[in-house]
Order: sequence, then structure tokens, then C-alpha cells
Amino acid sequence: MTRGQGLYEFTSDINDWLASQKVQTGLLTVFCRHTSASLLVQENADPTVQHDIKAYFSRIAPEDGPYIHNYEGSDDMPAHLKTALTQVQLSIPIVTGSLVLGTWQGVYLFEHRVRPHRREIVLHVIGE
Amino acid sequence: MTRGQGLYEFTSDINDWLASQKVQTGLLTVFCRHTSASLLVQENADPTVQHDIKAYFSRIAPEDGPYIHNYEGSDDMPAHLKTALTQVQLSIPIVTGSLVLGTWQGVYLFEHRVRPHRREIVLHVIGE
Amino acid sequence: MTRGQGLYEFTSDINDWLASQKVQTGLLTVFCRHTSASLLVQENADPTVQHDIKAYFSRIAPEDGPYIHNYEGSDDMPAHLKTALTQVQLSIPIVTGSLVLGTWQGVYLFEHRVRPHRREIVLHVIGE
Repeated sequence: MTRGQGLYEFTSDINDWLASQKVQTGLLTVFCRHTSASLLVQENADPTVQHDIKAYFSRIAPEDGPYIHNYEGSDDMPAHLKTALTQVQLSIPIVTGSLVLGTWQGVYLFEHRVRPHRREIVLHVIGE
Repeated sequence: MTRGQGLYEFTSDINDWLASQKVQTGLLTVFCRHTSASLLVQENADPTVQHDIKAYFSRIAPEDGPYIHNYEGSDDMPAHLKTALTQVQLSIPIVTGSLVLGTWQGVYLFEHRVRPHRREIVLHVIGE
Repeated sequence: MTRGQGLYEFTSDINDWLASQKVQTGLLTVFCRHTSASLLVQENADPTVQHDIKAYFSRIAPEDGPYIHNYEGSDDMPAHLKTALTQVQLSIPIVTGSLVLGTWQGVYLFEHRVRPHRREIVLHVIGE
């Protein structure tokens, strides 16, 4: 459940799920089942990075663009564009039971709609 | 075979191929073997979304940019940029024989060249 | 080790590593463990494409933007934005021992920081 536009880190949720799968070597795939929210790997040390990313995407995909599609409001089409500019799928190798994320990398759900939404993320692992 | 710039949905082609593979659990990877066409997961309900996406990318990667590379015409370099802004690879988990795509998600080939092109997409599955 | 902003092709390094793994059919995943450098699949024939891509991303994510986060200098936040606009993960199917890359496709590390950096890329393969 998101609380409006912004980045929501869920790296620890992924790690908890992965621990329950007892996979030592393999590939974890994260898949976001939406077209108005997406995934990002970004710095998890300084919150101003997340602020600047959110502000930047709102500048390059503004609500007042010349869009035809606006059934769900002025944040509708910008949400699709921000999803297109980022991605809905992310795969991360697993080595000795852990994701190979870098020291500063966190996995984020990037919510593009203004109002809160319930979002579904699929976690999938291949390995042994 | 594409018919100029735009989004071409091929979700049903993927599903047909997947059905022939008889994989119940696994990971499907879609790979686009080009640098001037790419892949997108986007809303498949309202065609105006596809129109707005195409128009948006032509605004942020315009044909009249200060490019050096233009051997194949004014749509050459914008095609590379649009490919860089989206992606050429997409992996989707398979659960109980079906892709975990969301209700509104379709898989599209995003053609960035003006003239028709023959495009090669590789489908690959891991699972059982 | 990168030598400032730009695209560094490492397709042959990947191919060399893959040859040592003796995998005939499978999936190779390339993962970049950073938030200020990313991965791109792009044309490897004409170097002007790489020049234009680098220049384009510096135009759409300029150093003089209204950023809050700038601890590491004016190229800090643009580096995070360029990473968000591209990707840190890439998976490529392997068929008969080779990557299914298209004729003109090369795999690049896209360095977004001005000063040289040591970068870590994880290569991971599933298959047999």
C-alpha cells in the first residue's frame, strides 16, 4: 500500500522472503504488476536522493503535458510515462544466499500516482 | 515486421509460444536484438496511452537534436536514444503455466524508426 | 576502472567469461553494483552513437538542475538520474553457447561520474 507519489524501499522485505526460500545460488526476479508504478535500484543512504529523483521525474513528465489520455486525472498519463522511463522488472543474482546488491543499493517501488494505491509485486527465485 | 514508429503489442504471441513449451513454473525472457527498437510493458486497455507514449518520446528525443550520428536519417539517433531510455530485455515470472502480468499489462515492441523494419525478438524460458 | 563519463564496451569480457562457464543453453545476467553508473545495450559500430548518447543524457539530466543532493559535487545527482533512466541489470539468453545479441548490439558500462571510478559488475549464469 503506497501513500502517494514517491519511492518506497522494500529491500528488507525481499531479503526476508529470500531467507525463507533457502536458495544459495540463483537469480531473484522482482516484477511489478502495474503500468503506473515501477521499480528502481537507487541509493539508500541519503533521503535527498529519493526526493530529487521524484522531483526530476515530475519535471520531465509533467502533469500539464499535451496528453490525450487523462481518464483518471492529470497524474494518469505522467504515471505511464514514468513507468516507461524506468522498469517493471528487476533480476538480481544470489551468491552464498545473499543478493549481490552494492553497498549503497536499495530496491524501491516508485509510486507515480498521487493517491494511495495497493500495489502487487511478484518475487520469483530460480536456483538451489 | 513493423509499419513505422509506434507500439506493437505481442503479448498473445508470447502466450502462444509459452503454451507450446509446457512450463508450469519458471522465468520467461524476451530479448530484442536491435538498438533502434525496444520493449515496453504498458497499458493495453486504452489506445490513447500508446499514442501519448509515442508522442512523448518524440518530444524528449526529437529529430532535430544536435546529433553527430545521422547516417540513416533524422530518425536514426533519436531511435538509439529512445532505446536507451527504455530497454531491450524483459523477464517475466511464470506461475501455474501463466505469465504473472497484471490485468492491464501488455508487452509491446516499441519501433523507433519511421520506415517499416523486420525485427527479431528472442523468447527464452527457464523452468519445468 | 573507468576514465570519466562515457560508455565503455565490455562485450568481449562477458564472452570470455561465458566461454569459461561451458554453458550451452541458459540465461546470462549482468548486474552493476552502483547507483551512479549503469548498463546499456547499444550500437557498437559507429563511435558517434556513444558520443551522442553521452551528450544527450547530460542535456536531459544537467549538472545545474535544482537538486538538493550534491554532497559529491555537481555530477552527483545527475549520475543517480541517468542510472534511474537506464538500468543496472541486463539478462541475455544463451543459445548454442553464445549470447543472442544482435549484429550491432554491444554491452556497455555507462559511467556517469566525471572522475575515474572502480566499478564492480557481477556476471551470473543459469543453464547447462
